[in-house]
Amino acid sequence: MITALAGGVGAARMLRGLVRAAPPGSVTAIVNTGDDTVLHGLHVSPDLDTVAYTLAGWSDDRRGWGLAGETWTTMEQLERLGGLTWFRLGDRDLATHLYRSQRLAEGATLSEVTSELVSSMAVPATLLPMSDDPVRTRMTLADGTDVAFQQYFVALGHAVAVAAVHFDGADVARPAPGVLAAIADADRIVVCPSNPVVSIGPILAVPGVRAALAARREDTVSVSPLVGGAALKGPADRLLRELGHDATGAGIASLYRDIAATLVIDDVDAADAPAVTAAGLRCIVAPTVMHDVDAATALARVVLDAG
Amino acid sequence: MITALAGGVGAARMLRGLVRAAPPGSVTAIVNTGDDTVLHGLHVSPDLDTVAYTLAGWSDDRRGWGLAGETWTTMEQLERLGGLTWFRLGDRDLATHLYRSQRLAEGATLSEVTSELVSSMAVPATLLPMSDDPVRTRMTLADGTDVAFQQYFVALGHAVAVAAVHFDGADVARPAPGVLAAIADADRIVVCPSNPVVSIGPILAVPGVRAALAARREDTVSVSPLVGGAALKGPADRLLRELGHDATGAGIASLYRDIAATLVIDDVDAADAPAVTAAGLRCIVAPTVMHDVDAATALARVVLDAG
Repeated sequence: MITALAGGVGAARMLRGLVRAAPPGSVTAIVNTGDDTVLHGLHVSPDLDTVAYTLAGWSDDRRGWGLAGETWTTMEQLERLGGLTWFRLGDRDLATHLYRSQRLAEGATLSEVTSELVSSMAVPATLLPMSDDPVRTRMTLADGTDVAFQQYFVALGHAVAVAAVHFDGADVARPAPGVLAAIADADRIVVCPSNPVVSIGPILAVPGVRAALAARREDTVSVSPLVGGAALKGPADRLLRELGHDATGAGIASLYRDIAATLVIDDVDAADAPAVTAAGLRCIVAPTVMHDVDAATALARVVLDAG
Repeated sequence: MITALAGGVGAARMLRGLVRAAPPGSVTAIVNTGDDTVLHGLHVSPDLDTVAYTLAGWSDDRRGWGLAGETWTTMEQLERLGGLTWFRLGDRDLATHLYRSQRLAEGATLSEVTSELVSSMAVPATLLPMSDDPVRTRMTLADGTDVAFQQYFVALGHAVAVAAVHFDGADVARPAPGVLAAIADADRIVVCPSNPVVSIGPILAVPGVRAALAARREDTVSVSPLVGGAALKGPADRLLRELGHDATGAGIASLYRDIAATLVIDDVDAADAPAVTAAGLRCIVAPTVMHDVDAATALARVVLDAG
């Protein structure tokens, strides 16, 4: 059994490799829900959806988010009505949010809804939200204003300096059913190449998760989201520096040292290996850029064979 | 100034005639919100939308509801996901519900949202929800089960016998801003040819509305929704009989006798005229079937010239 901690696009690609490299039905992903937001009355879970769409083979890999063959009829009409359109919800994607919002209103948990969606989409993995309780990532910007994650990430295009990140509700959130068991029982735990601060950070902030992972440190392999000191997508590198970390393999190692005994860094960052080792982690140097499914599968094999 | 009490399709057609027959900007509609429902987290106001779409020239007159040129991408995908699709929401129509739900979540009243939508759609009339407070029409079926209006009307296709109708929340609802003034200040009040029980009934159930109308009885003209004892659309005739009323001009007259001094009945029901008069209303016999805008305008002229 393989358990992965997952954010959005980077994690989805890693998972696409893992489900190919591992035995059928053996992969479970614990997915960040700190990015979740309610828009137009709809509960949107961006990371859960990105992972599900990608594993179902429904994603638009060229655009990097959302569904292939997507149309935008509702958004175009909403624009005509003068509504909020900075967060683009495609016509097909909307169905997921309608389904989730209806089921949550009926009293289902986010775990239950996720399980139903995963089943309808024939996703070849188990997806667990990190928590069924609301945890909301918020950013304190350098100018002191406090904004919700999607405001920072989408509306502001993450083009602003961040002074602090916090996870509203994390102090009282409980791990979703199955999360702690998936960590305790896994043969291999993988920290996907997601943003350590705003994708993996919220998962670790759910009480009990960090301790459960620490107990499995020897079997946990983390994959750096940085290549040559930069994030392939998103603001991970800048965010790390703004919050006082190094945007290097050593910086990632110091963030994960209590939960992972191993860190995979990219070939181009091979020079970081001694610093990773000095931080107390085994370091594996391998190609980490997942151009396609084969590259993702090769990286997954490295992760599964590690240690 | 003309003020109309309005349900859905029949009222929308009457209003399309009234805005042509009356001076520009003089028509206000007080619209039933007892049919409103929350589906998939979205606040849907079917009668407000039908009236707005029709007056904006956006409606699909052939289908009888919704928007012209509508597409169904989201519903098709929702079906694939195993979601609720008995209440069909088109891709363009969805934008209205997204807009409304977002603004209500931001703290706007239904009146404010309606005014914004009417302005974006360039609707040539003032639309007032009957109340900003929730009033929900519910039906007790002959077998004793209690269902929400849309469950009865759409999911069950109104093909079940009804024992009683009630308006949850009506006892504590307040008329929306402008409603009582629109009644008090109108030169002519029109009760549109809508279902007396489930379209006009909820409006009259809002405390203060019936008394305000009674004070204007002499200037109020009602239009029967029945032609030859049958509703042109929907279950009005059967519902009237099930609840112990006559599905005739006289039956309508007895329901409206305290609020309207005049009732317009269709040519084919001319034989009902003496019974309407006997019930205490002036009776006007005229063509009431609004095949097209010209027919609606002609009927509007009859209503405006009455008394």
